[in-house]
Amino acid sequence: SWSVIQHSEITVSQSMGVQNVKATQTQLSLLYKWLNSFPFLFLSGAGYHSESKAKEYKHVCKRACQRAVDRLKAGAFAVEAVAAALVELEDSPFTNAGMGSNLNLSGEIECDASIMDGKSLHYGAVGAISGIKNPVLVANRLLNEAQKGKLSAGRIPPCFLVGQGAHDWAVTHGIPPCPSEKMATKFSLSAYKRNKRKMELAEKMDTGHNQTKKRRQSSENENGSGCLDTVGAIVVDQEGNVAAAVSSGGLAMKHPGRVGQAAHYGCGCWAENACNMNPYSTAVSTSGCGEHLIRTMLARECSAAMQSEDAHQALLEAMQHKFISSPFLASEDRVLGGVIVLRCCRCVEAQPSQDIQGALVEFLWSHTTESMCVGYMSAQDSKAKTHISRLPPGAVPGQSLAIEGGVCRLMSIVE
Amino acid sequence: SWSVIQHSEITVSQSMGVQNVKATQTQLSLLYKWLNSFPFLFLSGAGYHSESKAKEYKHVCKRACQRAVDRLKAGAFAVEAVAAALVELEDSPFTNAGMGSNLNLSGEIECDASIMDGKSLHYGAVGAISGIKNPVLVANRLLNEAQKGKLSAGRIPPCFLVGQGAHDWAVTHGIPPCPSEKMATKFSLSAYKRNKRKMELAEKMDTGHNQTKKRRQSSENENGSGCLDTVGAIVVDQEGNVAAAVSSGGLAMKHPGRVGQAAHYGCGCWAENACNMNPYSTAVSTSGCGEHLIRTMLARECSAAMQSEDAHQALLEAMQHKFISSPFLASEDRVLGGVIVLRCCRCVEAQPSQDIQGALVEFLWSHTTESMCVGYMSAQDSKAKTHISRLPPGAVPGQSLAIEGGVCRLMSIVE
Repeated sequence: SWSVIQHSEITVSQSMGVQNVKATQTQLSLLYKWLNSFPFLFLSGAGYHSESKAKEYKHVCKRACQRAVDRLKAGAFAVEAVAAALVELEDSPFTNAGMGSNLNLSGEIECDASIMDGKSLHYGAVGAISGIKNPVLVANRLLNEAQKGKLSAGRIPPCFLVGQGAHDWAVTHGIPPCPSEKMATKFSLSAYKRNKRKMELAEKMDTGHNQTKKRRQSSENENGSGCLDTVGAIVVDQEGNVAAAVSSGGLAMKHPGRVGQAAHYGCGCWAENACNMNPYSTAVSTSGCGEHLIRTMLARECSAAMQSEDAHQALLEAMQHKFISSPFLASEDRVLGGVIVLRCCRCVEAQPSQDIQGALVEFLWSHTTESMCVGYMSAQDSKAKTHISRLPPGAVPGQSLAIEGGVCRLMSIVE
Repeated sequence: SWSVIQHSEITVSQSMGVQNVKATQTQLSLLYKWLNSFPFLFLSGAGYHSESKAKEYKHVCKRACQRAVDRLKAGAFAVEAVAAALVELEDSPFTNAGMGSNLNLSGEIECDASIMDGKSLHYGAVGAISGIKNPVLVANRLLNEAQKGKLSAGRIPPCFLVGQGAHDWAVTHGIPPCPSEKMATKFSLSAYKRNKRKMELAEKMDTGHNQTKKRRQSSENENGSGCLDTVGAIVVDQEGNVAAAVSSGGLAMKHPGRVGQAAHYGCGCWAENACNMNPYSTAVSTSGCGEHLIRTMLARECSAAMQSEDAHQALLEAMQHKFISSPFLASEDRVLGGVIVLRCCRCVEAQPSQDIQGALVEFLWSHTTESMCVGYMSAQDSKAKTHISRLPPGAVPGQSLAIEGGVCRLMSIVE
């Protein structure tokens, strides 16, 4: 019912401190279609997707889209639908979130997740949580509890819990614990063993070298093999509310207690309904290297950029200036991440028979990783569309980016 | 050697959804003085300060200023000096940071701290860490380790660690553990017992009432009695580099695992040297109710505001529109927090004898809490100045704010 309308890629090459930016707009067509109602969503994982893995990814993206649309059709708000999509993504053993998450240095699973409601602007997050199958449900519960107001004796409810305390809070609030050994998969366990060997070998080889040398020599990045595949989703509902969520098992072989962007306010996800100050409702979810996404606060930066007129140009500039060439990442050689973005504004257009109230929705994705998997679906579609976006041949991950997107209109936005 | 030059207060009263803002500028004088070199700093805790407590606070502020100045005189960068100031503040049993921190719901101490270096834009943070006397040293060590580049096998070093993992990382990196019972004080233990009784009483009284009613009735805020007294510091060094740090034991009776603004990127502290885009170097540290400071991302918002011409006006507007009246806190009745801010720009001015290179430094503090304690000192001063800033009589904490500050010039900024 709608098509990808924009596609361009830029290459940023840095030499002698001077940045030469080459931008090539490869496709530009516009295809509007009136959708007879309802919302849509999409989701992503940024990383490397082999052909064999791509199939599984597309499958789980489709199921997650369907799950969110089912909830929306039943009258749920955006924030509930986005949580439902995340549960499906976390439950897949193929994603690095919930079941099948990367193991940390100690061979344990510790997950990060967060969710934001564009209507109330409330936010909930958990970091380094173990033994919970669906971290996003804990984040969502924190958001819901905070909306109820103060606790006994005037205490302010938390919006961010970590570690054992987060686990205990979840169980107290009726979220069942899950034995950690059930959350690891054959794949994640064998990846752990492989990574462990690789690390030991790297450290052995470097014995006798000094610290600086050691670090430079071992710059080979193990994170190419799927472990950046965190998941996120963004949703607009039939009232025009937006919501975003993200969930991640974190980097493989991370230090226990490490918290990545998925639990970090402004970094993993962002959602803000339109208001006096902002003409557009925006929702953003990010995936990639947590430290890069934290230090650039990428979700919030992209959301803010989306208030300017040309969404495609704004996202391209944000990814280029606020991410790849960000002064906050000046010392990094490869800046790896991806974003999914939507923005939405109400519009009234005269039709032959009647004035129709609706919303113009633009959705875009962009990534500096080799590939990113996205899925999207409106409530009137019988099934989701999925797509693996890839950098153009020869482009260097971390220094180049791909950007694609689409536009659609939603009718019958309720006033 | 310099004086407070600006003082004004505004009262924001909200009625029927319309905001009436009454601003009164009570003092405005300008007193420049050439300081013959070196940097300065100040630090704060926002909360309620009784006269008896005020004395202790001023003492520890003075010692912390002295400690930082000592380091700066020895040639340290801003980031090292700010860490040194924080150690002194954490070591005081009177502050809610490090020793003497508030106890959580389980009667344990869990601390948050973060530090940011305006020069490298690197950042380190720990959340919900137990058994470490000086959490800021762990944050600082994370910052330093991240600057060294990748770990073995290409792993990206963490910038944010929480809980047991953070504790273990600290010990592995040579930071000695401290038995938790040594970190509690007679004061913090008796406050815990008092709070526990208050909570039990509140919950008992509410038995039979429904959840909503219960929460509304018990809106009395226990956080008036000193437990918002987290600490922060901001520094500019003789090269003009800025740095900021913050440390907190968190809200009294918080849920275990709760992480507040002090560990949250963009919320607890911010420091950014001047660059092509920004004429001013800025450093900000915040104190107050963590959830409010997180959701408004107050440190970063104030830092961004400081790029406009009139620092005083910019901070006043930021505190009013981005904090008290923030759409992110629409449902909150009392928005409690305080900030210390500095900005610095290089200037060349003709003098009778020679052209002198130096920096113009503006430093301001503002708070919506009943009071805030600040201290400041330049390297040429023999001792620090301290000051307890209070809301004007009759002003309602959380709805009114105080704003004060000063200006000074530093000479011999090294090119």
